[in-house]
Amino acid sequence: MAATEYARVDASISTFTLVHNFLALITIGLLGSEEQKNAYLADMASYKQVGCWALTEPSNGSDASALTCTATKVPGGWQLDGQKRWIGNGTWADVVVVWARNSETGQVNCFIVKKGTPGFKATKIENKIALRCVQNADMVFDRCFVPDSQRLPGVTGFKDTNKVLALSRIMVGWMPVGMAMGAYDMAARYVREREQFGTPLASFQLVQERLARMLGNIQGMWMMSWRITRLSEEGRLTHEQASLAKAWNTLRGRECVALARELLGGNGVQADFLVAKHFCDMEAIYTYEGTYDVNVLVAGRGATGIAAFKAPKARRAAPDVQA
Amino acid sequence: MAATEYARVDASISTFTLVHNFLALITIGLLGSEEQKNAYLADMASYKQVGCWALTEPSNGSDASALTCTATKVPGGWQLDGQKRWIGNGTWADVVVVWARNSETGQVNCFIVKKGTPGFKATKIENKIALRCVQNADMVFDRCFVPDSQRLPGVTGFKDTNKVLALSRIMVGWMPVGMAMGAYDMAARYVREREQFGTPLASFQLVQERLARMLGNIQGMWMMSWRITRLSEEGRLTHEQASLAKAWNTLRGRECVALARELLGGNGVQADFLVAKHFCDMEAIYTYEGTYDVNVLVAGRGATGIAAFKAPKARRAAPDVQA
Amino acid sequence: MAATEYARVDASISTFTLVHNFLALITIGLLGSEEQKNAYLADMASYKQVGCWALTEPSNGSDASALTCTATKVPGGWQLDGQKRWIGNGTWADVVVVWARNSETGQVNCFIVKKGTPGFKATKIENKIALRCVQNADMVFDRCFVPDSQRLPGVTGFKDTNKVLALSRIMVGWMPVGMAMGAYDMAARYVREREQFGTPLASFQLVQERLARMLGNIQGMWMMSWRITRLSEEGRLTHEQASLAKAWNTLRGRECVALARELLGGNGVQADFLVAKHFCDMEAIYTYEGTYDVNVLVAGRGATGIAAFKAPKARRAAPDVQA
Amino acid sequence: MAATEYARVDASISTFTLVHNFLALITIGLLGSEEQKNAYLADMASYKQVGCWALTEPSNGSDASALTCTATKVPGGWQLDGQKRWIGNGTWADVVVVWARNSETGQVNCFIVKKGTPGFKATKIENKIALRCVQNADMVFDRCFVPDSQRLPGVTGFKDTNKVLALSRIMVGWMPVGMAMGAYDMAARYVREREQFGTPLASFQLVQERLARMLGNIQGMWMMSWRITRLSEEGRLTHEQASLAKAWNTLRGRECVALARELLGGNGVQADFLVAKHFCDMEAIYTYEGTYDVNVLVAGRGATGIAAFKAPKARRAAPDVQA
Repeated sequence: MAATEYARVDASISTFTLVHNFLALITIGLLGSEEQKNAYLADMASYKQVGCWALTEPSNGSDASALTCTATKVPGGWQLDGQKRWIGNGTWADVVVVWARNSETGQVNCFIVKKGTPGFKATKIENKIALRCVQNADMVFDRCFVPDSQRLPGVTGFKDTNKVLALSRIMVGWMPVGMAMGAYDMAARYVREREQFGTPLASFQLVQERLARMLGNIQGMWMMSWRITRLSEEGRLTHEQASLAKAWNTLRGRECVALARELLGGNGVQADFLVAKHFCDMEAIYTYEGTYDVNVLVAGRGATGIAAFKAPKARRAAPDVQA
Repeated sequence: MAATEYARVDASISTFTLVHNFLALITIGLLGSEEQKNAYLADMASYKQVGCWALTEPSNGSDASALTCTATKVPGGWQLDGQKRWIGNGTWADVVVVWARNSETGQVNCFIVKKGTPGFKATKIENKIALRCVQNADMVFDRCFVPDSQRLPGVTGFKDTNKVLALSRIMVGWMPVGMAMGAYDMAARYVREREQFGTPLASFQLVQERLARMLGNIQGMWMMSWRITRLSEEGRLTHEQASLAKAWNTLRGRECVALARELLGGNGVQADFLVAKHFCDMEAIYTYEGTYDVNVLVAGRGATGIAAFKAPKARRAAPDVQA
Repeated sequence: MAATEYARVDASISTFTLVHNFLALITIGLLGSEEQKNAYLADMASYKQVGCWALTEPSNGSDASALTCTATKVPGGWQLDGQKRWIGNGTWADVVVVWARNSETGQVNCFIVKKGTPGFKATKIENKIALRCVQNADMVFDRCFVPDSQRLPGVTGFKDTNKVLALSRIMVGWMPVGMAMGAYDMAARYVREREQFGTPLASFQLVQERLARMLGNIQGMWMMSWRITRLSEEGRLTHEQASLAKAWNTLRGRECVALARELLGGNGVQADFLVAKHFCDMEAIYTYEGTYDVNVLVAGRGATGIAAFKAPKARRAAPDVQA
Repeated sequence: MAATEYARVDASISTFTLVHNFLALITIGLLGSEEQKNAYLADMASYKQVGCWALTEPSNGSDASALTCTATKVPGGWQLDGQKRWIGNGTWADVVVVWARNSETGQVNCFIVKKGTPGFKATKIENKIALRCVQNADMVFDRCFVPDSQRLPGVTGFKDTNKVLALSRIMVGWMPVGMAMGAYDMAARYVREREQFGTPLASFQLVQERLARMLGNIQGMWMMSWRITRLSEEGRLTHEQASLAKAWNTLRGRECVALARELLGGNGVQADFLVAKHFCDMEAIYTYEGTYDVNVLVAGRGATGIAAFKAPKARRAAPDVQA
């Protein structure tokens, strides 16, 4: 609910708290040692320290399990090498939760890197159209040393990453709900106040149909997220359902903000009216934490029992097809 | 739930029971006299007598309140004159609930006409593509005499018609849910069994995306109807919400059956595979009990406080507009 | 043009002439011997003999090249064995052009089978929602003997099938153009004549937007087909362009007939108003001569150089994906 | 063509030239006196002087004819009073073409105001998400004196404004064509270069379908603009056709840039990849020179003979409707 109400006003704020709480903090809470929990959770809960969560890499977005960052055992700790991209809060975070592949076992491990650690550099990604308040970083780890105490003992493979994502995905699913509600709020107010041809825009059929379509979508989205939250509380939520909810809510959310953008006419391209902001921000939500495609294919795997993520490797010559 | 499960298999059966129970029977139950209730309800509840409900006229569909059938007071009863159209169950119904305008007061009244009454004739509407098992009738009332005992005392105007429609609309909202579920059932089975290019259709990305989109829609639709049913039980449902749910569910339902139709390829045009039937039947559901347009404009009136049903009467010359 | 104008009134008539002329007749014309041309073309051109064209099989629609019907050399001719499905004109055609796999070479060959040939049986496919005047057949070839003279010498493999399809696909692309025009004609007339709330439906904004969207689509579709016809005349048309035009025109055509269906309200589900017929017929056009999916993947292959028709064979366990 | 190729790279540049040439310059060329033509056209043609065109007002966008800026006759010239909004090139233009209502006759007149004229002030509109290089101005005219020589003699009413708009609308219709082409260029290149799950994105079915849909739309859009340009050259273009082309091309263009944005995944929200820019810019094109709604209603008026721009003035109580 809180995530939704934050997102209703500003998806960047909502993303900031999501990354901090539902990615960085809960990773330590779920998978960290007692010492790590003692060291970080209190300060993070009070926002004395801000967290970020570094999984995505320049070459690996949807196929996150293919990560290439390496963690190599060295005396007293680990040496991290590689790059991360699109890491929200990455430029100012005090606590960087980094996922890297154990160069010996080939399994994915997880580490806490503090701001200012030698060999770690974060650069702000410029020129974003979406979530402009969120500072996303390109990160470089170049022989970056991390002491043994900063490795999360609860993480032994990519399945542990998914434990975190399973929770955060529920929260992400609420974001388009809030954003669509915020866009509706502004649009419904605007069309009542703005007149053309002698009557409020709200008196036009084309306008009312769009408002009604938004309302229908919003109610469907709200209940979709409410339902999977309940299922999660009851311990019955599957990955497939969470992915379906995230994908479908962003599909409908994208439709909602485009309708609202249109309802504001020329003023809809000015960020001051807030709808333009939601319109652009939705693109990030539609794509992060699993693109629409990846999430529907996760859902499709659940529905069919067949994984369809990959294309055939061999680029065979085109078969003769009727069409 | 029952309506949904009926509709999952066959929307005609579901429509038959809807017209009988949630239009004809409840009109008498809600608005009839004790004598009328005693005379009809038991036999109708056991389907010994089948009911139909005659509101729509050849010239008045969406604008139902403009009805032109007249009821003129004559000694001992009323004389009905006029026409009705699209009356489901109309060709075989024993009990015809007829709405007509009191020629003296101008208000809408309601009458029970029995099958075989002189001056009443029902003709089957042929060549429908949708709900082919439902027998819709064109009805003519030509100086049709109805005794005083068959006038419903609870009806004094069009607002009473809306009392019935408010309940039936909830049930109608469940129909696309069931139909979309039925279409999904068949499509999901078909794509697992049918192979092309050496693998089941279910292994193709384009197929999985459609299945996932259907699932998302169905869950949203299901909860939409569940929610308004709850609101109705709690006495908190507004006309606007019921109209929104009906319109939005049929919008999404139409999307679902088109996706399912496509998934069945050539076999999807053959009614034996059931999906073709749902595809055609949805068009009737999308349109009856208020078209999509009328229902979104009811919802839009709720959202804006402005009625946008009518167009400007005077066909004024086109204003100079920028575009 | 003629195909378009036929389709404007009735897509079944247009399909009948398409199958006869642009599949059966031109196959013999392009790939038959002089004797075969002399024997068939004149009678077919004057419709004294009606042709059909048997490629699709019960298990092979989109993946037409996988055909399993066999042609085995026997003294004086060939023995055909196997099944065909969805063969338009198949129940009454005098001249059946049959594609079968040479059981020795594995290549696709082509034969002319006359109505009444022993071992050949055609059964009408019942319960279609689309193209109801077209008689599609399920065909069985059971040790059906065809003399050597009835084998088309110009066919040595599936590439020759594609020569015919390349031409017929241009014609098929014109069909949704005509059907959308026909649906527009009826809808535009209906909304001017039908009144609700005291004015013609044509005076409502929601109605005008749909008419305009249909007009835009129709003009785009018309020019798309006009352009590929020109390219074909100039010998510059590629398979990929023809497939794109067919897929895109049916996508937009499907949108048009759904808009028109909706504009007719309740009367739109009755075939007498013609729009219902176009609405159903479009489903067949959307799917035959290459489904939407197969045609966009042919176009996609042209755009990317990569064939994406097949799914990975090995049903490997789902990869770990972020979503 | 040039407008299209400019827009393919940057819609702001294209808009800049459009405003300068096809609004400001041609207004003087079509409707100015010989002296005015001699004074401005050469310098404007060589871009020594930049033009802008001030029609839209804070309260009048779609309903441009309702403009409230006044021109009052004073000795030796005219006094302009009022406000303008969204005036492209407005902050730096040397030549401001201003439309104002003659306070005596009530007719729309047109004036040339030079940069720096006392009583004229232009302020940049900040925080736009679209066409960020175009400087749109809020303008205030406060007892701004314009000599008689700067009034365009060819303008006697709003019909003359429409003469200019009729030409500029053709050019505007080409803009989404170019932008969609530019977005396709980038997306098609990106999906070939970017790999996920071991193969280029271009090998995924979901990706190829989007590329094909874009291609189909682009070809339809291109020919739509080509056709109306030809009609215009032949003197046969109607307002309705130009409006339809503008509305439909932006509808399809909006679909194209959303598809391209999606194909770029996370990188699609970064303006450096250009697609994000087209995605945002399209919103301005969709809305300026007549919103989608106004243009489809102009087209709808052409198709039906009925103007549906206005809503009923009297906010009557909602009629009783079936839904």
